[in-house]
Amino acid sequence: MHAIDLLLKKRNGAELSTAEIEFFVQAVVRHEEAAVEGRKTAMEETGAEPAAPPGAGDITDAQLGAFLMAVFQRGLSLRELSDLTKAMRFSGETFHASDLTAAKTETFTLDKHSTGGVGDKSSLLIAPVWAAAGVLQPVIEEHSRPASAPSSLFVPMISGRSLGHTGGTLDKLETIPGFDSQLGPERMIQVLRECHAVLLGQTPRLVPADRILYAMRDHTGTVESPFLICASIMSKKLAEDLRGLVLDVKVGSGAFMPTEERSRFLADLMVSTGESSGTRTVALLTAMEEPMGRFSGNWVEVWECAEIMKGARHRMSQDLIELANALSGWGLFLSGRANSPEQGARIADAILRSGAAYAAWLKIIAAQGGDVSVFSDPAAFHRPRATRVLSAPRAGYLSAMDCKEIGWAIQRLGAGRTRPNDPVSAHAGLESHAKIGDHVEAGQPIFTLFSEDELLLDEPCRMIEDALEIANAPPERRPLIRAVIQAKPGTRRPSVDAR
Amino acid sequence: MHAIDLLLKKRNGAELSTAEIEFFVQAVVRHEEAAVEGRKTAMEETGAEPAAPPGAGDITDAQLGAFLMAVFQRGLSLRELSDLTKAMRFSGETFHASDLTAAKTETFTLDKHSTGGVGDKSSLLIAPVWAAAGVLQPVIEEHSRPASAPSSLFVPMISGRSLGHTGGTLDKLETIPGFDSQLGPERMIQVLRECHAVLLGQTPRLVPADRILYAMRDHTGTVESPFLICASIMSKKLAEDLRGLVLDVKVGSGAFMPTEERSRFLADLMVSTGESSGTRTVALLTAMEEPMGRFSGNWVEVWECAEIMKGARHRMSQDLIELANALSGWGLFLSGRANSPEQGARIADAILRSGAAYAAWLKIIAAQGGDVSVFSDPAAFHRPRATRVLSAPRAGYLSAMDCKEIGWAIQRLGAGRTRPNDPVSAHAGLESHAKIGDHVEAGQPIFTLFSEDELLLDEPCRMIEDALEIANAPPERRPLIRAVIQAKPGTRRPSVDAR
Repeated sequence: MHAIDLLLKKRNGAELSTAEIEFFVQAVVRHEEAAVEGRKTAMEETGAEPAAPPGAGDITDAQLGAFLMAVFQRGLSLRELSDLTKAMRFSGETFHASDLTAAKTETFTLDKHSTGGVGDKSSLLIAPVWAAAGVLQPVIEEHSRPASAPSSLFVPMISGRSLGHTGGTLDKLETIPGFDSQLGPERMIQVLRECHAVLLGQTPRLVPADRILYAMRDHTGTVESPFLICASIMSKKLAEDLRGLVLDVKVGSGAFMPTEERSRFLADLMVSTGESSGTRTVALLTAMEEPMGRFSGNWVEVWECAEIMKGARHRMSQDLIELANALSGWGLFLSGRANSPEQGARIADAILRSGAAYAAWLKIIAAQGGDVSVFSDPAAFHRPRATRVLSAPRAGYLSAMDCKEIGWAIQRLGAGRTRPNDPVSAHAGLESHAKIGDHVEAGQPIFTLFSEDELLLDEPCRMIEDALEIANAPPERRPLIRAVIQAKPGTRRPSVDAR
Repeated sequence: MHAIDLLLKKRNGAELSTAEIEFFVQAVVRHEEAAVEGRKTAMEETGAEPAAPPGAGDITDAQLGAFLMAVFQRGLSLRELSDLTKAMRFSGETFHASDLTAAKTETFTLDKHSTGGVGDKSSLLIAPVWAAAGVLQPVIEEHSRPASAPSSLFVPMISGRSLGHTGGTLDKLETIPGFDSQLGPERMIQVLRECHAVLLGQTPRLVPADRILYAMRDHTGTVESPFLICASIMSKKLAEDLRGLVLDVKVGSGAFMPTEERSRFLADLMVSTGESSGTRTVALLTAMEEPMGRFSGNWVEVWECAEIMKGARHRMSQDLIELANALSGWGLFLSGRANSPEQGARIADAILRSGAAYAAWLKIIAAQGGDVSVFSDPAAFHRPRATRVLSAPRAGYLSAMDCKEIGWAIQRLGAGRTRPNDPVSAHAGLESHAKIGDHVEAGQPIFTLFSEDELLLDEPCRMIEDALEIANAPPERRPLIRAVIQAKPGTRRPSVDAR
């Protein structure tokens, strides 16, 4: 097989075969390996001839760039997308749910993924809730657990880092002293068995094809293809060998996708791709019109979640709790622990209120080396060197925000990064004193900005001022959960629940 | 300026600015230079670090591939195409018509280009005819030369080599013993001044951007873009600093473009691009349904043209003479040496018949080091080691041919190449004894195949047998010149004749 033949087919809008897509992904991984070896050789053997042109089975950088652009322009069929996702998923090491329990014991592996937002820390609540649902049978029994529920629920959650205007769960977790997000495979299994959840970062051995393709997409202008976004997200999630996946697809001024229509299209692709791999998949389109919850940043978000789980939810913002419960509820429903997503949300809320989620949280963090003593007084651990209060310039209703711009302001405060390996500040961030729809008086505080450096406050402050709209009339209220996207009847594989 | 920004614009179908296109072409040339230097450094400095990622002003292989695919999918506006062609044209050394004559003397530089065919040797007739028209004033005076004719006509003809199913003028010329197609710039000017024509090959210093982009297009599946084909052809032709250009765009079973519609589209682009650079440009859509003339190959085609110019045209095929005269006639018209293309064709025919073209031919060949004694008995110089006659399997009319397949058969006989640096045989080729529309008896010879090796005859013989159609009724006769494409009124720059 030759890369040029695949290029010509995709260029002309023809559908690639499963074998051709597998060839492509394998060639991409081999290409990266050869590039690393080639550099070595050139450095070791002085006077070596330049490498020969690519032969059968090889792909060049230029072909890769051309292929990505052809896919960007021509798209993929659902079958091609499923094949691409699968080939990427199996391009490196994968997790096996069957390693978790003894033979013939049913397991239900479950995870969630968000397309990224500002102040979106729902994973920090959902993972403990699901872990508690896996550990604490009594809580569930009260809510008439269905007979079909599998015996064990596990959450092998792999999270990403902040990039651009959005935060990253991993950066938040790593503010906890001692916390280790890079456990080896054996320790990962141990923590999952003990805690029913583990909170990890991406490793180079997991889905290497995505790492290579993502770097290529970034500099060939092909990042925004919904097909390539879907394959990137789903290959990494499905490599966790999931039986259930809850997707949080953001819409609104802080979302990556510029329109609700495109968010919905991406959600459709991801649900279809998940289901075609035998993973029960649902996507919630949720509002990202303003920073989620009370705090945005790194440690401040961990603090916020710990307070909610400790029972101090009245001090925190209700939007975050509503979102986390809705997503948790869908996971409990998919895993057979609730009869409906709505019942699942009520169970999730009960788990939060009962303290069971907080217990699960402490157990997970401790198992991953984290110092849980910081949670006894999380406010004390928040040590920004500089703060500034941003107040309402006039009275009126807080009617809208350019949430993406606020995300960029938080990045400039030091909480985020523009390039993958930049450091982030644990203590930079934002506190929201008012939410969209609230009436504010002139001079009333809307945000407090935190940074490690007084000099870093000016620009973000101006950016946020410009991003706010204050109107005389209250804005229309829209629900937080905008839509739920499930597999269309007939597209779900019958083997999902039977395997 | 960053390559990624251009990529995003073109990906989304936006129009690139002139500065952006110039940046792209310059980055391509710098990229190639850096690659060559980078290899050197890696070989010289053992243990050197891998190169840093590309900064502003740089372009990577992957970006180049993605850009070519984006152009393939999105196309270019006529303004973008003109800018791309211009930037490529000036990416290396260029010829300056003003070097030919003393200051203030009017010169008219003229060339032709064919999109490639089988047995298409018209350049070998057209260059001497135009050279004779530049040298031999009396012949022209007879035909009421217009008062506006510039005083000097020069033909700085740069030709290509055979590739795939088509022949190359350069391979044909190089069968002449001693002939040098790689003259330096000073010698080129000398030969042009002496002979009014020079017959050269491409050099690495001329339009380097095209050499780099062509190699990239070849392996990224972007060869067939009419926009990229146009920029490739026209950048090289316009680097000759032409005032007139006659394009022969082939249509039919032996043409590169698969349909007449796409040939016409390409012709429109080339005419528009030429005119926008101030070069009077015309394209003739001409039939390529069967091997042109009596012979196809390398030396046999030179032989055929020499015989025609020596006056033995009755022994040769009339289609070639008709084509050459039509193209020559347009050149004489564009250069002000005829009042119409039709009158130009009559002048061209007169130049051929008068022996003036043959005299010009001998002068050019001798000036470029060629041994003209071979033309005294050109048939004697034809020395294939193996020949085979292919006869009609039944009586009927020769109704159609798969001319591309016949071109490939000629390549397999040894006359052509599949890769740029393969050697070609001077003596391999084909003689046509019958033409489409002719009635043939069973067993009547249709072709004689020539090769340097008996073993090379079998496969081409079968290929040609399969490529022939014999019908009971004569085929419809269609004209050789299918259409003439000129600049649309208003698109021609007023400066063309005034500069």
